[in-house]
Amino acid sequence: MPRAALLDPQGQAVEHALQALGFEGVARVRVGKHLVLELTAASPDDALARARAMCDRLLANPVTEDYDVALDGEAPR
Amino acid sequence: MPRAALLDPQGQAVEHALQALGFEGVARVRVGKHLVLELTAASPDDALARARAMCDRLLANPVTEDYDVALDGEAPR
Repeated sequence: MPRAALLDPQGQAVEHALQALGFEGVARVRVGKHLVLELTAASPDDALARARAMCDRLLANPVTEDYDVALDGEAPR
Repeated sequence: MPRAALLDPQGQAVEHALQALGFEGVARVRVGKHLVLELTAASPDDALARARAMCDRLLANPVTEDYDVALDGEAPR
């Protein structure tokens, strides 16, 4: 997800399109990426730690993006 | 998220890049979009229903994409 302090032109375009379609009460839209990883791991915590390592190493750009990781069907932590 | 039956070349590229970096046990990667909507709504269920309507009308391509909606900090439902 683009960092909160950065402009998100794609999110603004979606926000304006929703308003143009008549959807009211949309205060803000931000657009990022969603990756689903199927991993072999020793435990749920191990899977989360490995996913974070992948984000830090490759998947997220630390200058422009924040990320959350979550196990399938659970809330981010 | 691209529908399960469809090829996801972006996901395959990420999967190969992770393997090239030495991450083992990555069975499959799929890449989709993540949208965060700030909505004014009468209730949490109303917010979810309105987000689904936005997905059906604009945000998701029903031919190629599936979607889940979730309240902030909760698992998809």
